[in-house]
Amino acid sequence: MAIRYEHIHTCKQSGARLGRLHTPHGVIETPIFMPVGTLATVKTMTPEELADIGSQIILSNTYHLWLRPGNELVKEAGGLHKFMNWDKPILTDSGGFQVFSLQNMRTIEEEGVHFRSHLDGSKLFLSPEKSMKIQHDLGADIIMSFDECAPIPATRDYVKNSLERTTRWAERGLEYHTKSGKDKTQALFGIVQGGEYPDLRKQSAKELTSLDFPGYSIGGLSVGEPKPLMYEMLEETVPYLPESKPRYLMGVGSPDALIEGVIRGIDMFDCVLPTRIARNGTCMTSNGRLVVKNKKYERDFTPLDPNCDCYTCKNYTRAYIRHLFKSNEILGARLTTYHNLYFLLNLMEDVRKAILNDSLLDFKEVFFEAYGLNKENPKNF
Amino acid sequence: MAIRYEHIHTCKQSGARLGRLHTPHGVIETPIFMPVGTLATVKTMTPEELADIGSQIILSNTYHLWLRPGNELVKEAGGLHKFMNWDKPILTDSGGFQVFSLQNMRTIEEEGVHFRSHLDGSKLFLSPEKSMKIQHDLGADIIMSFDECAPIPATRDYVKNSLERTTRWAERGLEYHTKSGKDKTQALFGIVQGGEYPDLRKQSAKELTSLDFPGYSIGGLSVGEPKPLMYEMLEETVPYLPESKPRYLMGVGSPDALIEGVIRGIDMFDCVLPTRIARNGTCMTSNGRLVVKNKKYERDFTPLDPNCDCYTCKNYTRAYIRHLFKSNEILGARLTTYHNLYFLLNLMEDVRKAILNDSLLDFKEVFFEAYGLNKENPKNF
Repeated sequence: MAIRYEHIHTCKQSGARLGRLHTPHGVIETPIFMPVGTLATVKTMTPEELADIGSQIILSNTYHLWLRPGNELVKEAGGLHKFMNWDKPILTDSGGFQVFSLQNMRTIEEEGVHFRSHLDGSKLFLSPEKSMKIQHDLGADIIMSFDECAPIPATRDYVKNSLERTTRWAERGLEYHTKSGKDKTQALFGIVQGGEYPDLRKQSAKELTSLDFPGYSIGGLSVGEPKPLMYEMLEETVPYLPESKPRYLMGVGSPDALIEGVIRGIDMFDCVLPTRIARNGTCMTSNGRLVVKNKKYERDFTPLDPNCDCYTCKNYTRAYIRHLFKSNEILGARLTTYHNLYFLLNLMEDVRKAILNDSLLDFKEVFFEAYGLNKENPKNF
Repeated sequence: MAIRYEHIHTCKQSGARLGRLHTPHGVIETPIFMPVGTLATVKTMTPEELADIGSQIILSNTYHLWLRPGNELVKEAGGLHKFMNWDKPILTDSGGFQVFSLQNMRTIEEEGVHFRSHLDGSKLFLSPEKSMKIQHDLGADIIMSFDECAPIPATRDYVKNSLERTTRWAERGLEYHTKSGKDKTQALFGIVQGGEYPDLRKQSAKELTSLDFPGYSIGGLSVGEPKPLMYEMLEETVPYLPESKPRYLMGVGSPDALIEGVIRGIDMFDCVLPTRIARNGTCMTSNGRLVVKNKKYERDFTPLDPNCDCYTCKNYTRAYIRHLFKSNEILGARLTTYHNLYFLLNLMEDVRKAILNDSLLDFKEVFFEAYGLNKENPKNF
């Protein structure tokens, strides 16, 4: 087995779990947030900076790397770790999410999906086996089954058909993966789908766990549905996943959803949110979000977050960072990206401590209060 | 006096000089190249990275900072050093070069220059006194007299009138500067002009040195003229500058011109060349320039420069950096900027060693040969 999940402690107050995930490129303390490096780079950051702020694992995107620079080139470079100079764990997705979110000229068949490149419109085809092949070339520690990420809302019939095909695809991918012998060095996760239907979530979880993957992802959430629905779906899904395997909630990165996810038994998260909003000048702080480009920060010579001890907050003012953004200077996006990732990784460290201290619900209350959640800004991130 | 030039050694082979420039924010070993941080940031770099690669002093632009974020805001922030988190020496130009190179709607009067903002077309006016005021607010260690940078070619009459006005402007700026008392903490340089006319260069140098500035700049070169003409003008100018003061050749940053300038007695240089071409994917290497976006580097898994020991060259391949540029990833420009600045700063360190060893002409021959100069690529940079 490529990976092993070690359970450390269950929070007596919240039921959240603390653990360690042993991978070929090192040990990850869970629950953890994974920064996203779509094209073999976490935008604006060096690998050393990522390590400095406590990134234990990063995510990269199979679909994007398949198109640019191509999985074969990455393989020739010695794999993704070597190509991008990152020697800690990496997780790659399956390409499924991008096929279903970026493309509109797609045809789904039992064999796989025909669609067009978002770069040049050329015809492409992705299947469970093809996704495995690409992910083998990339060489991440943790890889994903090729799935269909159905929209919410969608009809029950559509979602049922979709999740059952996703199960068949998972089985095909697993077979290809096992036969290749890559299961010794790369751990393949199954992805639970089922949309907004509790019984379909249960069905998907049961079908996938019967295949005995080394870990399970929960997909098809955080696709625009209200957060309470996402939390409900987690409650309907997690009980059917084995205690002995890691659980990964895909595409979630708002502070409140991270905490709510952990309380519901999730170990791993990823999202472009912190890095994407950072490049637009929006910062996560202990007092909620801050749009540093706003005029009111023009002469504000305090840090982004007075309670933060990251490199950005120790050395730069809101006025300076605002100036960088107003002048389109790259350093602006570097400083806010650094801060936002630090903020989320630091939050997860606090969450892990709170689990160990059996006080995650107390922590949540204090954090939400300061962040301005549940009050005048129920949807603040 | 805000600064003091200390002479260390004169190269017996080339006549180049090695020295130390003592400034309020530390000592600079000369000859030195100064990275340009136009808008209070050397594009893509943090101050710590600049220090790591051996930057001893950086340059920032008065005109740009006057417009954004405004000199008064920078003053309120505690000055440029504090605003941008750089505690080593800074030099600001006078705004003159930008007024004459960026603007076309300008009217030159004895009092100063009327022109329009390159950002929004609004009417602006810059004078010797105004330039001093702005530079006082910015608070750089070394500041420049407001001058007219005449084009090459230009008629003798035009250049003579221009340089004489530049002398009068220098005198006015010096008076304003001295009366303000800022001469204790900021060293004001005079700028020698005179276009391509040896006798006018001599006239300008003599007029300015009679005013006894703590340092002298040579302006109006590297404006498109052939390099041999620039070298000739240096030979016609430097002999009239005092041995006891630093000499700064403005706007020069190609490796060959740096070496040729040092041989002709120059101590300080600045140029956007290394950082600007880096952001376009063009790299300076010990074997000449390398355009990393070229198709031929697609599967080249060697460093940008196999002879370089910078962070970029120790950790990344041409193939990876090419991928970053083809994907418009910010890390690409970070890595090439880092490398190009390292290359030039390292070159200047080698030059200083060669001066101390009385072997600068030998060094030049070996460097030019490897860089591909004087042969098939006489204009390679």
